[in-house]
Amino acid sequence: MIAEPVRFHYAACFQVAYHSNFGEQFMRNVMAMLLLCLVSAPPAGTQTARPINLMPAPASLQVGAGQLVIGPVFSVAITGHTEPRLQRAVDIFLGDLRRQCGMPPQNTPLSDPAKATLVVNSEDGSKEVQEVGEDESYTLEVSPSGAQLSAATTLGIMRGLQTFLQLVEVGPNGFAVPVLTIKDQPRFPWRGLMIDVGRHFMPLDVLKRNLDGMAAVKMNVFHWHLSDNQGFRVESKRFPKLQAMGSDGLYYTQEEVREVIAYARDRGIRVVPEFDMPGHSTAWFVGYPELASGHGPYAIERKWGVFDPAMDPTKDSTYKFLDEFIGEMAKLFPDQYFHIGGDEVKGKEWDANPKIQEFMRGHGIKTNPDLQAYFNRRVQEIVSKHGKTMEGWDEILRPDLPKSIVIQSWRGQDSLAAAAKQGYRGLLSFGYYVDLNWPAWQHYEVDPMAKAAADLGDEEKQRILGGEAAMWAEYVSPENIESRIWPRTAAIAERLWSPQNVRDVDSMYQRMGAISHRLDWLGLTHNSSYVPMLRRIAGSDDVGALRTLADVVEPVKDYTREELAETPPLSSDPLNRLVDAVRPESMTARHFSELVDAFVAGGSKPGTEAEIRALLARWRDHQVELQPLAEESYLLKEVMPLSRHLSALGTAGLAALDYLDHGEQAPAAWKTEQLALIEQIKKPKAQLLLMVAPSVQKLVEASAGAGSGSPAR
Amino acid sequence: MIAEPVRFHYAACFQVAYHSNFGEQFMRNVMAMLLLCLVSAPPAGTQTARPINLMPAPASLQVGAGQLVIGPVFSVAITGHTEPRLQRAVDIFLGDLRRQCGMPPQNTPLSDPAKATLVVNSEDGSKEVQEVGEDESYTLEVSPSGAQLSAATTLGIMRGLQTFLQLVEVGPNGFAVPVLTIKDQPRFPWRGLMIDVGRHFMPLDVLKRNLDGMAAVKMNVFHWHLSDNQGFRVESKRFPKLQAMGSDGLYYTQEEVREVIAYARDRGIRVVPEFDMPGHSTAWFVGYPELASGHGPYAIERKWGVFDPAMDPTKDSTYKFLDEFIGEMAKLFPDQYFHIGGDEVKGKEWDANPKIQEFMRGHGIKTNPDLQAYFNRRVQEIVSKHGKTMEGWDEILRPDLPKSIVIQSWRGQDSLAAAAKQGYRGLLSFGYYVDLNWPAWQHYEVDPMAKAAADLGDEEKQRILGGEAAMWAEYVSPENIESRIWPRTAAIAERLWSPQNVRDVDSMYQRMGAISHRLDWLGLTHNSSYVPMLRRIAGSDDVGALRTLADVVEPVKDYTREELAETPPLSSDPLNRLVDAVRPESMTARHFSELVDAFVAGGSKPGTEAEIRALLARWRDHQVELQPLAEESYLLKEVMPLSRHLSALGTAGLAALDYLDHGEQAPAAWKTEQLALIEQIKKPKAQLLLMVAPSVQKLVEASAGAGSGSPAR
Repeated sequence: MIAEPVRFHYAACFQVAYHSNFGEQFMRNVMAMLLLCLVSAPPAGTQTARPINLMPAPASLQVGAGQLVIGPVFSVAITGHTEPRLQRAVDIFLGDLRRQCGMPPQNTPLSDPAKATLVVNSEDGSKEVQEVGEDESYTLEVSPSGAQLSAATTLGIMRGLQTFLQLVEVGPNGFAVPVLTIKDQPRFPWRGLMIDVGRHFMPLDVLKRNLDGMAAVKMNVFHWHLSDNQGFRVESKRFPKLQAMGSDGLYYTQEEVREVIAYARDRGIRVVPEFDMPGHSTAWFVGYPELASGHGPYAIERKWGVFDPAMDPTKDSTYKFLDEFIGEMAKLFPDQYFHIGGDEVKGKEWDANPKIQEFMRGHGIKTNPDLQAYFNRRVQEIVSKHGKTMEGWDEILRPDLPKSIVIQSWRGQDSLAAAAKQGYRGLLSFGYYVDLNWPAWQHYEVDPMAKAAADLGDEEKQRILGGEAAMWAEYVSPENIESRIWPRTAAIAERLWSPQNVRDVDSMYQRMGAISHRLDWLGLTHNSSYVPMLRRIAGSDDVGALRTLADVVEPVKDYTREELAETPPLSSDPLNRLVDAVRPESMTARHFSELVDAFVAGGSKPGTEAEIRALLARWRDHQVELQPLAEESYLLKEVMPLSRHLSALGTAGLAALDYLDHGEQAPAAWKTEQLALIEQIKKPKAQLLLMVAPSVQKLVEASAGAGSGSPAR
Repeated sequence: MIAEPVRFHYAACFQVAYHSNFGEQFMRNVMAMLLLCLVSAPPAGTQTARPINLMPAPASLQVGAGQLVIGPVFSVAITGHTEPRLQRAVDIFLGDLRRQCGMPPQNTPLSDPAKATLVVNSEDGSKEVQEVGEDESYTLEVSPSGAQLSAATTLGIMRGLQTFLQLVEVGPNGFAVPVLTIKDQPRFPWRGLMIDVGRHFMPLDVLKRNLDGMAAVKMNVFHWHLSDNQGFRVESKRFPKLQAMGSDGLYYTQEEVREVIAYARDRGIRVVPEFDMPGHSTAWFVGYPELASGHGPYAIERKWGVFDPAMDPTKDSTYKFLDEFIGEMAKLFPDQYFHIGGDEVKGKEWDANPKIQEFMRGHGIKTNPDLQAYFNRRVQEIVSKHGKTMEGWDEILRPDLPKSIVIQSWRGQDSLAAAAKQGYRGLLSFGYYVDLNWPAWQHYEVDPMAKAAADLGDEEKQRILGGEAAMWAEYVSPENIESRIWPRTAAIAERLWSPQNVRDVDSMYQRMGAISHRLDWLGLTHNSSYVPMLRRIAGSDDVGALRTLADVVEPVKDYTREELAETPPLSSDPLNRLVDAVRPESMTARHFSELVDAFVAGGSKPGTEAEIRALLARWRDHQVELQPLAEESYLLKEVMPLSRHLSALGTAGLAALDYLDHGEQAPAAWKTEQLALIEQIKKPKAQLLLMVAPSVQKLVEASAGAGSGSPAR
């Protein structure tokens, strides 16, 4: 599963082969040259000067001269093997292409290969149920007269069609695709996104949009976290009180589940269900308290956290229930893998239950983890009996479980490596929790093969299947969930698909920006939901001043939101605050930081200082505009301290620039005062961080002659 | 159906009764005072200073002091009559309310009336099939401790719930509704929106979003134009070649039709199907050429216009077919009304068919309109036999048809009045064609009771049922159709619901702006689709300069797009040009015109000139930014002449202001040159009009001392 040494080709500019051990700096240079070359020096005859914004980056890309024009008569032919799934894939592709180009919907019949713009050739079809490691490679060759997409399987064709869509750009003579050859295959066979619908239910349209987004970046596993303390979200016909009493009426019918699975399959995505047990299971116990280790009665949990209720692993009736339940779900979900969760069992109910204590003594089970291991063994037998392979979080790993199980690691690469050494397969979710509001580069840097995993032997490395982005749902609603997943998950998708040495962060950000807007064509709401949410907060259609603030703040990171909450957050809380509306990563702050770094280092481009000044002035002035609205909106009132701070940063930054411009060193007292203020400003307010504070601090420090002196401009 | 003299009350500010004959100016004053009062002088104890942006305006509104806070524990109780449709209406309302306030989805069980925030009381339920004239009145009373919504029927409750949603605004202490009493009922019983899905097919989600929009502005008829030369869009099980050969595969299954009807019914909307005959029917003849008067073979029409093919009205087999077809559709569509189109029959096929000519001679039928009347009589018998009431466009009106039929008039109020005098009921669509890109005020001014209709007797007036906005679909795709319908259709909805003397245009625009953003919460795409379409045209994520241009242009009006087309437009044409992306009405141009009018008249507010200058400077400068992108996008290239013109307008306007500021009269030669240029600029380019040209002309004229001299500032 480790990619062969791959080749990036770029005809007429340069041609280069690189190997995964060539080192990061070399790769950065290659990527920079690749982009530069595309932007600034198109080969003669090439009619496009646009960068090629593929994400994930393909394993090999060779660009030629000229382009293939995409007109309303664009047509596709299928040669070689065909099947309904392939034909649907082509239909979906044509619909997406038409939408992207602004052509009204039209059913385009398949064309004669001799006349088709794009000829699709698959050697073989699909497995009846999509498998881990099923061939996803493809070759795409584009000439001025047509394109050929070849693959071993329908899956490979699906991946190649997404690549084709990303290549289509408006040009001087119409929409067009550059002449090129791409040979591509994934680095890892398991590239997933987990969505937690237990904590906050997500309607079907949200799931479908996210599946569209996943397909666009070549992800292939939708991990559906379907039950938790706060909700049990699937209809069970065998145990109907699960959804009737455990979901507040917010659950998926079996018909809807099948609809999601079919939708995913048509996009080359497996659906792995997770039913978390024996902990994270309060919602089960509302209808079936006999499953639990405590007394009950139980109610759906309304708070966030790790809670006491756990299944009783000592009663045969528990396993009888699970046998029937898993049997029912194993039929509903065709995927080979069945996720039992297994994380965060507190054991308090076990400690407090004399019968469980007696059982442990009687069976020589000494600790709660041992008891959970006993539970897991028995559940594994049930899962296996129903023809499935068990998957679970780190905690389930115990040497008495068969080697077939798969470990999903929230602990990290060392944990994965340890499992691999013992013969277990695993995938990484540590570092890919998109609910923690990390910047994209931070996820991007996390590699499943890093740390101890880097030192594994080849056979052991094969056991590391890939990874999954995880969208835990304490603070997301259908309105803002897409803005938490996208576009940052595209960076994770690239990490899992592209060669290991594709890691230039600037290139990633440039391409992530492009893919973000491409996802708009699919109807994803991560961009479109932003301004309406700001309007709600402002209580006004004029959100200019609020947007100035919103564009430079980010939600607090990791688990700080819980820590800073004045009262325990509830699942029914509105998610309409500025912290819920703003992007997890501020692109304005990133851009400002680049400007300031270049300016302070000296030798920045002409106009850099003017751009910095314009931003600072806008920040300084926005507060006066925002203040009158604040009296009229409780949602705005809570962020006014941030607004004042942003205004102060603008003032401080402009003063620093004035000192620098006058070649005058800022007074020490002023500097001390400003730095103290900035330290204050860096603290979270209303669960938000002002992301431009560190850059303004650099300006203040530079103006006071700190570091390497005044910048050369 | 004419509303009783209605009352607007405004406690603590003023109280006034007005009658429909009080005259327009008086009403303008009342509306202006109402808004002014709300904005600037809230009564003591009122915690909100926001205007009440109801659209359509209610028949009577009395505002008190204080507000009802809407929190996460908001609950509804139903007292009085209940039925599943009412409960679903409450569920939909709660979902909409939660979305609008940013609360995650939650199923809220009905509450005990003693504890509920909102108590809903309906005297009676729904008719089995929603009827024309079914009672839609309601009373809404809001106090600081709760709200009571009362109505005679479920329909009235639905209308009142929409009013409640429009009252919810963010406030200093949370979301809240002002204390008030509203008594409301519609002026007309038929308030419709027609969507033509024949020319361009619209997927189900588009229809549902528009139904949501209709419900929000209290419209009650979705007129579904289901067949035309370019497509036959419904599955017929009896005549499957209709959709199989007449739709390019783009049609609604009967299950989908039922889904749309149920969706509409849950929102208080009737669904009236239209199958256009005997003309506009080419798509039928692809599968069933024997229905036609010509030779065939027929193909789906790919152009726009009025075409020759027409059904053969002389053959019994035609009526046998229609009997079976209408019988099938009469079962599928429960509404009492069945629209047979009947417009624009050219008669060429009839003239050319000797058998038809022979038939006419044999039956003493002298003209083609007479032949169509014969056809209509026979079709009316069929429609009637299947239990339905026939509806058709103006052309079907002939005294030999029974008085039960309904005429939809594209010709105007005089045509309606003539029908009413003959005893026929009718509704107005003249003046409500939203595809013609009129400004909202122009639709708003069209009143079904104007012109000859104003002089009808009371009983005749009762025959004028209302009106319908019409969305003909030559130039709309799923991407931009909502931007053509919304928000302007809200102005038409108000014309048809609110008292006749509610006609203050400024107030309408203010409230239309508010409703436009409220529709965002329902997922309508009229706002969200704009910037992505501009990005496509620019081929860039940076659309600042293009948006500057796009914000001040409008598509050409009426049928100019056809007239100016260099080659005949085709149904497969991309709809991705700037003309497809821009709003039908430029709010920036409207605002600029207001600024310039105030400035030129003298005595404008401080800052007016600065705002005018800022806009002009931005227009002057945008072209330099846009030009580099134009080389790379064919979609941008075509609008560059407009860009140059906008830049020239900016320069001219700034020069005019300079003359005015210096108290210097602009030279006559300069003026002549500028006016000649502006005349040039007023001509359409790329099917677009630069809407700020007339205002810049006013500045130029003012600077040269034309009119009443230099403005006082």
